[in-house]
Amino acid sequence: MKFTIITLFPNLIQTNINESIVKRAVEKKLIDVEILNLRDFSTLNNQQIDDYQYGGGAGMVIMVEPVVKAIESCKTKDSLVLLTSPQGITLNQCIAKEYSKNFKHIIIICGHYEGFDERVLDYVDFEISIGDYILTGGELPALILVDSITRLINGVIKEDSHINDSFENNLLDHPVYTKPLDFRGKKVPDVLISGHHAKVKDYRNKQRLKNTYNKRPDLINYDTLSIDDIKYLKELKDSKGEN
Amino acid sequence: MKFTIITLFPNLIQTNINESIVKRAVEKKLIDVEILNLRDFSTLNNQQIDDYQYGGGAGMVIMVEPVVKAIESCKTKDSLVLLTSPQGITLNQCIAKEYSKNFKHIIIICGHYEGFDERVLDYVDFEISIGDYILTGGELPALILVDSITRLINGVIKEDSHINDSFENNLLDHPVYTKPLDFRGKKVPDVLISGHHAKVKDYRNKQRLKNTYNKRPDLINYDTLSIDDIKYLKELKDSKGEN
Repeated sequence: MKFTIITLFPNLIQTNINESIVKRAVEKKLIDVEILNLRDFSTLNNQQIDDYQYGGGAGMVIMVEPVVKAIESCKTKDSLVLLTSPQGITLNQCIAKEYSKNFKHIIIICGHYEGFDERVLDYVDFEISIGDYILTGGELPALILVDSITRLINGVIKEDSHINDSFENNLLDHPVYTKPLDFRGKKVPDVLISGHHAKVKDYRNKQRLKNTYNKRPDLINYDTLSIDDIKYLKELKDSKGEN
Repeated sequence: MKFTIITLFPNLIQTNINESIVKRAVEKKLIDVEILNLRDFSTLNNQQIDDYQYGGGAGMVIMVEPVVKAIESCKTKDSLVLLTSPQGITLNQCIAKEYSKNFKHIIIICGHYEGFDERVLDYVDFEISIGDYILTGGELPALILVDSITRLINGVIKEDSHINDSFENNLLDHPVYTKPLDFRGKKVPDVLISGHHAKVKDYRNKQRLKNTYNKRPDLINYDTLSIDDIKYLKELKDSKGEN
C-alpha cells in the first residue's frame, strides 16, 4: 500500500509520520508514504496556489490547476483519490477496512478551510470527512486516514490486537484492568483474578454488550448477535443498563 | 482558554501545535497549551506506566495511578476533563462550540489503543470520540479537539470566516471558484461573475441547500429554514437533486 499526501504543510505530515505506528510500517516496507507539496505545482510566481473567490466573500480559494497537476503527477490506474472535506462521506471502521484491503495506492489531498475550487471534484473519487466538525486544515484528517488504514494492513500490528477493537462486531470493547488490585478503594472485579477462563470470557462478552448498550446503542446489530447475547440485552433493558 | 494535554508523546503534540493555527492563538495570548508527559507521573522504575491486564489478553493496559496523578496535578474547579476514546460521545460542531464558550480549562488525556484501566473513568468528565474508527493513539484526536475548539474562540480567526462554515445552520457550504474562468472547458458559473450581489447570494443559498440535500440530507433541520428554502428543497426532491 502506498499513500501519497498532497499538502501545504509537508513538514507537519512528515513529523507525524516519523512519530507514529506508520513509521514502523514504512520501515517494515508494509507501506510507503509519499508527500507532495502543493506549492511545487503552482503555475504562478511565488508558488501562489490560491486566489480571491468569484462572486466575492471572505477567504481565498485554492486553485484547481495546481491540485490537478499534483494528482496527475502521481496517479496510476490503481489509485484512489480522496479529498478531505467536511462535506465528504464520514469515515468509519468499515471504510478504513475496505480501503486497507482493496487499494494499492491512496492519494489524499489535504483540504483547507479556505476551500478548493469546485472543479477539483472532477478529479477526485471521494470527498471524505472524519466527522461533523470544522478544522483549519486537512492535515490532521489525512493523518487520521493513514493511521486508521495502516493499522489494519496485515503485519502492522499483532493479529489478535484487532479482535476486541471497539466497532468489531459492532460492539465497543470491554473494560480492562491492571495493577494495583485496589486503587483508593476501587477493586478489580473478582472474576478477572479467578483464573477461570470461561467465566472471564463470558464476563467480557457481557461487558462489551453492556458498554455498547449504555454508550452507543445505535451501533448494535442484532443480526450478528447470538440468542444468549440478545437475551442479555433484554435483561439490561429491563434493569435499565445496570445488570 | 487553557488546554492541558496529558500524553505519552509530548513531542508529537508540541510539533503539531507549533505548525498550526493554535500557535497563532497562543502568540496572541487567546489560548494557552500545557503538555504533560504521562511518564513523569509514573510511580515505578523506568517511568513505567502500563502493565499486563488482569484476566489475560493481548496488549498492555495503562495504569490508573499515573493518569490520576497527572489529572490532579493540573485540575482546578474550572477544569473539564476529557479522555479521548472510541467509546466516547462523538465530537461535532455543536460540542466544539459549547466547549469553546463554556470552559476555561480543558484537560485532554490522550487515549491509547492498549486501553486505560477502567478506574480512570472515575476521574474523567467525558470520554470523547472524534469518529467511529480505531486509531493507534489519542494524540491526533486531542489535536483535533484543540483545533476545532480554538478556531471558535473569539479573535482567533476572522469573524466572517465562520458564517458559511459547513454545519452552520445545519447546512454544508456552497461551492467556491477562483481563477481561471475556464479550466479545461469547465467554466465558473455565470452568476458569480455577474456582479449582481442579490443573485449571487440567492445562488449560494440554494447551492448550500442543494449540497446538503445531495450529500448529507440527515443534517437538514427544517425548523431553521425559511419557507422559500423549504420550497426549493421540495423542487430538488421532485427533480431528484438536479435543480
